[in-house]
Amino acid sequence: MKFSKIPAATITRLSIYSRTLEQLTGEGSTVISSEKLATMCGVNPAQIRKDLAYFGEFGVRGVGYYAKELLFEIKKILGLNKTWKLGIFGTGNLGCALVAHENFAKQGYHFVAAFDVDPGKVGHKLASGLLIHHVNELEEVARGAGIEIGVISTPPSAAQGIANRLATIGIRGILNFAPVQIQVEGGLRVENVDFTVKLDNLAYHLTTP
Amino acid sequence: MKFSKIPAATITRLSIYSRTLEQLTGEGSTVISSEKLATMCGVNPAQIRKDLAYFGEFGVRGVGYYAKELLFEIKKILGLNKTWKLGIFGTGNLGCALVAHENFAKQGYHFVAAFDVDPGKVGHKLASGLLIHHVNELEEVARGAGIEIGVISTPPSAAQGIANRLATIGIRGILNFAPVQIQVEGGLRVENVDFTVKLDNLAYHLTTP
Repeated sequence: MKFSKIPAATITRLSIYSRTLEQLTGEGSTVISSEKLATMCGVNPAQIRKDLAYFGEFGVRGVGYYAKELLFEIKKILGLNKTWKLGIFGTGNLGCALVAHENFAKQGYHFVAAFDVDPGKVGHKLASGLLIHHVNELEEVARGAGIEIGVISTPPSAAQGIANRLATIGIRGILNFAPVQIQVEGGLRVENVDFTVKLDNLAYHLTTP
Repeated sequence: MKFSKIPAATITRLSIYSRTLEQLTGEGSTVISSEKLATMCGVNPAQIRKDLAYFGEFGVRGVGYYAKELLFEIKKILGLNKTWKLGIFGTGNLGCALVAHENFAKQGYHFVAAFDVDPGKVGHKLASGLLIHHVNELEEVARGAGIEIGVISTPPSAAQGIANRLATIGIRGILNFAPVQIQVEGGLRVENVDFTVKLDNLAYHLTTP
Protein backbone atom coordinates (compact mmCIF):
# COMPACT_ATOMS: atom_id res chain seq x y z
CA MET A 1 0.00 0.00 0.00
CA LYS A 2 1.21 3.50 -0.74
CA PHE A 3 0.34 6.50 1.40
CA SER A 4 2.10 9.18 -0.54
CA LYS A 5 0.38 12.18 1.04
CA ILE A 6 1.11 11.46 4.68
CA PRO A 7 2.72 14.47 6.38
CA ALA A 8 6.17 13.86 7.84
CA ALA A 9 4.89 15.15 11.19
CA THR A 10 2.26 12.39 11.23
CA ILE A 11 4.95 9.75 10.83
CA THR A 12 6.96 11.28 13.67
CA ARG A 13 3.86 11.32 15.88
CA LEU A 14 3.06 7.69 15.03
CA SER A 15 6.53 6.88 16.26
CA ILE A 16 5.82 8.69 19.53
CA TYR A 17 2.43 6.98 19.89
CA SER A 18 4.13 3.60 19.45
CA ARG A 19 6.72 4.41 22.17
CA THR A 20 3.95 5.42 24.56
CA LEU A 21 1.81 2.38 23.73
CA GLU A 22 4.81 0.15 24.31
CA GLN A 23 5.27 1.68 27.74
CA LEU A 24 1.55 1.28 28.51
CA THR A 25 1.30 -2.33 27.37
CA GLY A 26 4.50 -3.05 29.29
CA GLU A 27 2.75 -1.73 32.39
CA GLY A 28 -0.22 -3.99 31.71
CA SER A 29 -2.69 -1.51 30.20
CA THR A 30 -5.19 -3.08 27.81
CA VAL A 31 -7.51 -0.21 26.94
CA ILE A 32 -6.52 3.44 26.86
CA SER A 33 -8.73 6.48 26.37
CA SER A 34 -7.78 8.80 23.55
CA GLU A 35 -7.49 11.60 26.15
CA LYS A 36 -4.91 9.72 28.20
CA LEU A 37 -2.90 8.65 25.16
CA ALA A 38 -3.02 12.24 23.88
CA THR A 39 -1.84 13.71 27.19
CA MET A 40 1.02 11.22 27.42
CA CYS A 41 2.11 12.05 23.88
CA GLY A 42 1.75 15.81 24.28
CA VAL A 43 -0.92 16.23 21.58
CA ASN A 44 -4.70 16.60 21.59
CA PRO A 45 -7.07 13.66 20.99
CA ALA A 46 -8.26 15.11 17.67
CA GLN A 47 -4.67 15.01 16.40
CA ILE A 48 -4.38 11.31 17.17
CA ARG A 49 -7.65 10.58 15.39
CA LYS A 50 -6.56 12.64 12.38
CA ASP A 51 -3.16 10.93 12.19
CA LEU A 52 -4.65 7.45 12.44
CA ALA A 53 -7.42 8.24 9.94
CA TYR A 54 -4.85 8.21 7.13
CA PHE A 55 -4.46 4.50 7.66
CA GLY A 56 -7.90 3.21 8.60
CA GLU A 57 -10.28 3.11 11.51
CA PHE A 58 -8.92 2.54 14.96
CA GLY A 59 -10.40 2.84 18.41
CA VAL A 60 -13.89 2.27 19.72
CA ARG A 61 -16.19 5.21 20.39
CA GLY A 62 -16.73 5.70 24.11
CA VAL A 63 -14.04 3.17 24.97
CA GLY A 64 -10.75 4.33 23.50
CA TYR A 65 -8.02 2.26 21.94
CA TYR A 66 -7.03 -1.34 22.54
CA ALA A 67 -3.38 -0.66 23.35
CA LYS A 68 -1.86 -3.89 22.04
CA GLU A 69 -3.82 -3.88 18.78
CA LEU A 70 -3.09 -0.23 18.11
CA LEU A 71 0.60 -0.76 18.83
CA PHE A 72 0.66 -3.68 16.41
CA GLU A 73 -1.06 -1.65 13.68
CA ILE A 74 1.20 1.38 14.11
CA LYS A 75 4.29 -0.80 14.01
CA LYS A 76 3.00 -2.39 10.80
CA ILE A 77 2.42 1.06 9.28
CA LEU A 78 5.90 2.24 10.24
CA GLY A 79 7.57 -0.92 8.99
CA LEU A 80 8.61 -1.96 12.47
CA ASN A 81 7.15 -5.45 12.28
CA LYS A 82 10.62 -6.57 11.19
CA THR A 83 14.13 -5.89 12.47
CA TRP A 84 16.38 -3.51 10.54
CA LYS A 85 20.08 -4.03 9.91
CA LEU A 86 22.30 -1.02 10.53
CA GLY A 87 25.92 -0.26 9.72
CA ILE A 88 27.82 2.28 11.80
CA PHE A 89 30.33 4.47 9.98
CA GLY A 90 32.83 6.07 12.36
CA THR A 91 33.55 4.41 15.69
CA GLY A 92 34.58 7.46 17.69
CA ASN A 93 32.84 8.37 20.94
CA LEU A 94 29.52 8.96 19.23
CA GLY A 95 29.64 5.80 17.11
CA CYS A 96 30.50 3.68 20.16
CA ALA A 97 27.73 5.34 22.18
CA LEU A 98 25.18 4.64 19.43
CA VAL A 99 26.11 0.97 19.08
CA ALA A 100 25.91 0.57 22.86
CA HIS A 101 22.65 2.53 23.31
CA GLU A 102 19.91 0.14 24.31
CA ASN A 103 17.12 2.05 22.52
CA PHE A 104 18.19 0.77 19.12
CA ALA A 105 17.89 -2.95 19.77
CA LYS A 106 14.74 -2.37 21.84
CA GLN A 107 13.09 -0.81 18.79
CA GLY A 108 14.29 -3.50 16.40
CA TYR A 109 17.37 -1.74 15.02
CA HIS A 110 20.45 -3.94 15.04
CA PHE A 111 23.98 -2.88 14.23
CA VAL A 112 25.47 -5.63 12.06
CA ALA A 113 28.70 -3.99 10.87
CA ALA A 114 31.09 -1.23 11.93
CA PHE A 115 33.58 0.80 9.88
CA ASP A 116 36.44 3.17 10.54
CA VAL A 117 39.64 4.33 8.85
CA ASP A 118 41.85 4.41 11.94
CA PRO A 119 44.47 1.61 11.68
CA GLY A 120 44.42 1.47 15.47
CA LYS A 121 40.75 0.46 15.39
CA VAL A 122 40.32 -1.61 12.23
CA GLY A 123 40.42 -5.31 13.06
CA HIS A 124 39.47 -4.71 16.69
CA LYS A 125 36.06 -5.25 18.20
CA LEU A 126 33.63 -2.80 19.80
CA ALA A 127 32.41 -3.54 23.33
CA SER A 128 29.34 -5.17 21.76
CA GLY A 129 31.60 -7.65 19.97
CA LEU A 130 31.14 -6.05 16.55
CA LEU A 131 34.29 -6.21 14.40
CA ILE A 132 35.52 -2.88 12.98
CA HIS A 133 36.18 -3.07 9.23
CA HIS A 134 38.18 -0.64 7.16
CA VAL A 135 35.86 1.59 5.18
CA ASN A 136 37.68 0.43 2.03
CA GLU A 137 35.71 -2.79 2.42
CA LEU A 138 32.38 -0.95 2.66
CA GLU A 139 30.72 -2.47 -0.42
CA GLU A 140 31.73 -6.06 0.28
CA VAL A 141 30.95 -6.00 4.00
CA ALA A 142 27.69 -4.06 3.60
CA ARG A 143 26.39 -6.58 1.07
CA GLY A 144 27.56 -9.55 3.11
CA ALA A 145 26.03 -8.27 6.35
CA GLY A 146 22.85 -7.10 4.61
CA ILE A 147 23.01 -3.49 5.82
CA GLU A 148 19.73 -1.67 5.14
CA ILE A 149 20.40 1.65 6.86
CA GLY A 150 23.73 3.45 7.21
CA VAL A 151 24.38 5.43 10.40
CA ILE A 152 27.03 8.10 9.83
CA SER A 153 29.02 9.35 12.81
CA THR A 154 32.20 10.26 10.95
CA PRO A 155 33.82 13.71 10.88
CA PRO A 156 31.85 16.06 8.59
CA SER A 157 34.38 15.79 5.75
CA ALA A 158 33.89 12.03 5.35
CA ALA A 159 30.08 11.91 5.45
CA GLN A 160 29.27 12.70 1.81
CA GLY A 161 31.70 10.11 0.47
CA ILE A 162 30.17 7.38 2.63
CA ALA A 163 26.68 8.41 1.54
CA ASN A 164 27.66 8.24 -2.14
CA ARG A 165 29.08 4.76 -1.76
CA LEU A 166 26.04 3.54 0.17
CA ALA A 167 23.77 4.93 -2.57
CA THR A 168 25.82 3.12 -5.23
CA ILE A 169 25.18 -0.26 -3.64
CA GLY A 170 21.45 0.45 -3.32
CA ILE A 171 21.16 1.40 0.33
CA ARG A 172 18.20 3.74 0.65
CA GLY A 173 18.32 5.08 4.20
CA ILE A 174 20.89 7.12 6.12
CA LEU A 175 20.77 8.43 9.66
CA ASN A 176 23.29 11.25 9.72
CA PHE A 177 24.89 12.54 12.92
CA ALA A 178 27.71 14.42 11.20
CA PRO A 179 27.18 18.18 11.35
CA VAL A 180 27.01 18.57 7.57
CA GLN A 181 24.28 18.62 4.94
CA ILE A 182 24.47 15.46 2.81
CA GLN A 183 23.44 15.92 -0.84
CA VAL A 184 21.14 13.11 -1.82
CA GLU A 185 20.33 11.62 -5.18
CA GLY A 186 17.86 9.09 -6.45
CA GLY A 187 16.10 6.93 -3.94
CA LEU A 188 18.32 7.74 -0.97
CA ARG A 189 16.67 9.25 2.08
CA VAL A 190 18.69 11.01 4.77
CA GLU A 191 17.47 11.88 8.26
CA ASN A 192 19.70 14.32 10.08
CA VAL A 193 20.00 14.21 13.84
CA ASP A 194 20.68 17.61 15.35
CA PHE A 195 20.69 17.51 19.14
CA THR A 196 20.49 21.28 19.37
CA VAL A 197 16.94 21.51 17.97
CA LYS A 198 15.73 20.09 21.28
CA LEU A 199 17.88 22.61 23.12
CA ASP A 200 16.19 25.45 21.22
CA ASN A 201 12.92 24.15 22.58
CA LEU A 202 14.29 24.35 26.12
CA ALA A 203 15.77 27.79 25.49
CA TYR A 204 12.39 29.05 24.31
CA HIS A 205 10.62 27.79 27.40
CA LEU A 206 13.30 29.05 29.77
CA THR A 207 13.14 32.47 28.12
CA THR A 208 9.35 32.73 28.06
CA PRO A 209 8.21 32.97 31.67
CA MET B 1 6.22 38.74 26.59
CA LYS B 2 4.34 35.51 27.06
CA PHE B 3 3.10 33.36 24.20
CA SER B 4 1.44 30.62 26.16
CA LYS B 5 -0.59 29.09 23.33
CA ILE B 6 2.21 28.45 20.86
CA PRO B 7 2.18 24.82 19.68
CA ALA B 8 5.34 22.84 20.44
CA ALA B 9 5.58 21.96 16.74
CA THR B 10 5.78 25.67 15.89
CA ILE B 11 8.76 26.09 18.20
CA THR B 12 10.49 23.10 16.62
CA ARG B 13 9.85 24.52 13.16
CA LEU B 14 11.17 27.95 14.19
CA SER B 15 14.35 26.16 15.19
CA ILE B 16 14.56 24.55 11.75
CA TYR B 17 13.84 27.88 10.00
CA SER B 18 16.68 29.47 11.97
CA ARG B 19 19.13 26.70 10.94
CA THR B 20 18.16 27.15 7.30
CA LEU B 21 18.36 30.95 7.48
CA GLU B 22 21.79 30.67 9.05
CA GLN B 23 22.92 28.51 6.17
CA LEU B 24 21.42 30.95 3.64
CA THR B 25 22.89 34.08 5.21
CA GLY B 26 26.23 32.25 5.48
CA GLU B 27 26.04 31.69 1.71
CA GLY B 28 25.35 35.38 1.19
CA SER B 29 21.58 35.35 0.58
CA THR B 30 19.85 38.59 1.56
CA VAL B 31 16.26 38.01 0.43
CA ILE B 32 14.54 34.65 0.27
CA SER B 33 11.12 33.81 -1.14
CA SER B 34 8.73 32.05 1.20
CA GLU B 35 8.56 29.22 -1.36
CA LYS B 36 12.32 28.62 -1.28
CA LEU B 37 12.52 28.81 2.50
CA ALA B 38 9.56 26.43 2.74
CA THR B 39 11.09 23.91 0.35
CA MET B 40 14.41 23.96 2.18
CA CYS B 41 12.63 23.39 5.50
CA GLY B 42 10.30 20.69 4.18
CA VAL B 43 7.08 22.57 4.90
CA ASN B 44 4.67 24.64 2.81
CA PRO B 45 4.79 28.46 2.66
CA ALA B 46 1.44 28.79 4.46
CA GLN B 47 2.91 26.91 7.42
CA ILE B 48 5.78 29.37 7.72
CA ARG B 49 3.39 32.32 7.61
CA LYS B 50 1.15 30.71 10.22
CA ASP B 51 4.07 29.94 12.54
CA LEU B 52 5.48 33.45 12.27
CA ALA B 53 2.05 35.09 12.68
CA TYR B 54 2.08 34.08 16.37
CA PHE B 55 4.87 36.55 16.92
CA GLY B 56 4.18 39.45 14.60
CA GLU B 57 4.41 40.43 10.96
CA PHE B 58 7.39 39.31 8.97
CA GLY B 59 8.17 39.29 5.28
CA VAL B 60 7.20 41.58 2.46
CA ARG B 61 4.40 40.62 0.09
CA GLY B 62 5.76 39.83 -3.36
CA VAL B 63 9.34 39.89 -2.10
CA GLY B 64 9.75 37.30 0.60
CA TYR B 65 11.80 37.51 3.75
CA TYR B 66 14.92 39.48 4.55
CA ALA B 67 17.03 36.56 5.68
CA LYS B 68 19.21 38.31 8.23
CA GLU B 69 16.34 40.21 9.86
CA LEU B 70 14.14 37.12 10.03
CA LEU B 71 16.99 35.08 11.52
CA PHE B 72 17.55 37.76 14.15
CA GLU B 73 13.85 37.86 15.05
CA ILE B 74 13.51 34.07 15.27
CA LYS B 75 16.60 33.84 17.45
CA LYS B 76 15.13 36.48 19.72
CA ILE B 77 11.84 34.56 19.93
CA LEU B 78 13.64 31.32 20.76
CA GLY B 79 15.89 32.95 23.34
CA LEU B 80 19.00 32.37 21.25
CA ASN B 81 20.19 35.97 21.36
CA LYS B 82 22.29 34.89 24.34
CA THR B 83 24.58 31.94 25.03
CA TRP B 84 23.41 29.15 27.31
CA LYS B 85 25.52 27.39 29.91
CA LEU B 86 25.28 23.62 29.97
CA GLY B 87 26.47 20.98 32.40
CA ILE B 88 27.14 17.44 31.18
CA PHE B 89 26.24 14.60 33.54
CA GLY B 90 27.98 11.37 32.61
CA THR B 91 31.21 11.48 30.62
CA GLY B 92 31.01 8.11 28.89
CA ASN B 93 31.21 7.82 25.12
CA LEU B 94 27.99 9.77 24.62
CA GLY B 95 28.86 12.54 27.07
CA CYS B 96 32.30 12.98 25.49
CA ALA B 97 30.77 13.00 22.01
CA LEU B 98 28.25 15.67 23.02
CA VAL B 99 30.84 17.97 24.58
CA ALA B 100 33.02 17.61 21.48
CA HIS B 101 30.16 18.03 18.95
CA GLU B 102 30.59 21.34 17.15
CA ASN B 103 26.85 21.99 16.72
CA PHE B 104 26.41 23.00 20.36
CA ALA B 105 28.87 25.88 20.43
CA LYS B 106 27.80 26.94 16.93
CA GLN B 107 24.25 27.41 18.23
CA GLY B 108 25.32 29.22 21.38
CA TYR B 109 25.28 26.27 23.79
CA HIS B 110 28.43 26.03 25.89
CA PHE B 111 29.39 23.22 28.22
CA VAL B 112 30.77 24.84 31.37
CA ALA B 113 30.99 21.86 33.73
CA ALA B 114 31.23 18.06 33.57
CA PHE B 115 30.32 15.42 36.15
CA ASP B 116 30.88 11.73 36.64
CA VAL B 117 31.10 9.22 39.50
CA ASP B 118 33.99 7.15 38.13
CA PRO B 119 37.07 7.72 40.34
CA GLY B 120 39.17 7.06 37.25
CA LYS B 121 37.63 10.10 35.55
CA VAL B 122 36.96 12.60 38.35
CA GLY B 123 39.75 15.19 38.51
CA HIS B 124 40.77 14.56 34.90
CA LYS B 125 39.94 16.75 31.95
CA LEU B 126 37.90 16.06 28.83
CA ALA B 127 39.55 16.63 25.44
CA SER B 128 37.93 20.09 25.42
CA GLY B 129 39.80 20.96 28.61
CA LEU B 130 36.71 20.73 30.82
CA LEU B 131 37.47 19.36 34.30
CA ILE B 132 35.37 16.38 35.42
CA HIS B 133 33.86 16.90 38.88
CA HIS B 134 32.40 14.25 41.14
CA VAL B 135 28.62 14.38 41.04
CA ASN B 136 28.71 14.80 44.83
CA GLU B 137 29.75 18.38 44.14
CA LEU B 138 26.82 18.99 41.77
CA GLU B 139 25.15 21.80 43.73
CA GLU B 140 28.31 23.75 44.45
CA VAL B 141 29.83 23.42 40.97
CA ALA B 142 26.54 24.05 39.15
CA ARG B 143 25.99 27.27 41.06
CA GLY B 144 29.58 28.39 40.64
CA ALA B 145 29.65 27.69 36.91
CA GLY B 146 26.15 29.12 36.37
CA ILE B 147 24.69 26.02 34.71
CA GLU B 148 21.31 26.82 33.13
CA ILE B 149 20.57 23.51 31.39
CA GLY B 150 21.57 20.02 32.50
CA VAL B 151 22.45 17.45 29.83
CA ILE B 152 22.04 13.91 31.13
CA SER B 153 24.02 11.11 29.50
CA THR B 154 24.27 8.85 32.54
CA PRO B 155 23.08 5.24 32.75
CA PRO B 156 19.25 5.14 33.07
CA SER B 157 19.35 4.39 36.80
CA ALA B 158 21.16 7.63 37.65
CA ALA B 159 19.10 10.04 35.55
CA GLN B 160 16.19 10.71 37.93
CA GLY B 161 18.46 11.46 40.88
CA ILE B 162 20.41 14.02 38.86
CA ALA B 163 17.17 15.63 37.67
CA ASN B 164 15.87 15.90 41.24
CA ARG B 165 19.05 17.59 42.42
CA LEU B 166 19.07 19.99 39.47
CA ALA B 167 15.45 20.91 40.20
CA THR B 168 16.30 21.57 43.85
CA ILE B 169 18.88 24.20 42.93
CA GLY B 170 16.46 25.89 40.54
CA ILE B 171 17.67 24.58 37.18
CA ARG B 172 14.68 24.58 34.85
CA GLY B 173 15.82 22.73 31.74
CA ILE B 174 17.09 19.20 31.11
CA LEU B 175 18.11 17.55 27.86
CA ASN B 176 17.87 13.84 28.57
CA PHE B 177 19.72 11.21 26.54
CA ALA B 178 19.27 8.40 29.07
CA PRO B 179 16.72 5.83 27.88
CA VAL B 180 14.37 6.43 30.78
CA GLN B 181 11.35 8.62 31.46
CA ILE B 182 12.24 11.34 33.97
CA GLN B 183 9.41 12.39 36.31
CA VAL B 184 9.29 16.16 36.49
CA GLU B 185 7.94 18.47 39.13
CA GLY B 186 7.41 22.18 39.37
CA GLY B 187 9.05 24.38 36.81
CA LEU B 188 11.43 21.78 35.42
CA ARG B 189 11.17 21.02 31.70
CA VAL B 190 12.69 17.89 30.21
CA GLU B 191 13.33 17.27 26.52
CA ASN B 192 14.11 13.65 25.71
CA VAL B 193 16.37 12.76 22.82
CA ASP B 194 15.49 9.44 21.26
CA PHE B 195 17.60 8.71 18.18
CA THR B 196 15.29 5.92 17.10
CA VAL B 197 12.35 8.23 16.30
CA LYS B 198 14.31 9.36 13.25
CA LEU B 199 14.98 5.73 12.37
CA ASP B 200 11.24 5.02 12.43
CA ASN B 201 10.87 7.73 9.83
CA LEU B 202 13.43 5.99 7.64
CA ALA B 203 11.83 2.60 8.23
CA TYR B 204 8.47 3.97 7.14
CA HIS B 205 9.87 5.39 3.91
CA LEU B 206 11.91 2.27 3.14
CA THR B 207 8.83 0.13 3.69
CA THR B 208 6.42 2.28 1.69
CA PRO B 209 7.50 2.07 -1.92
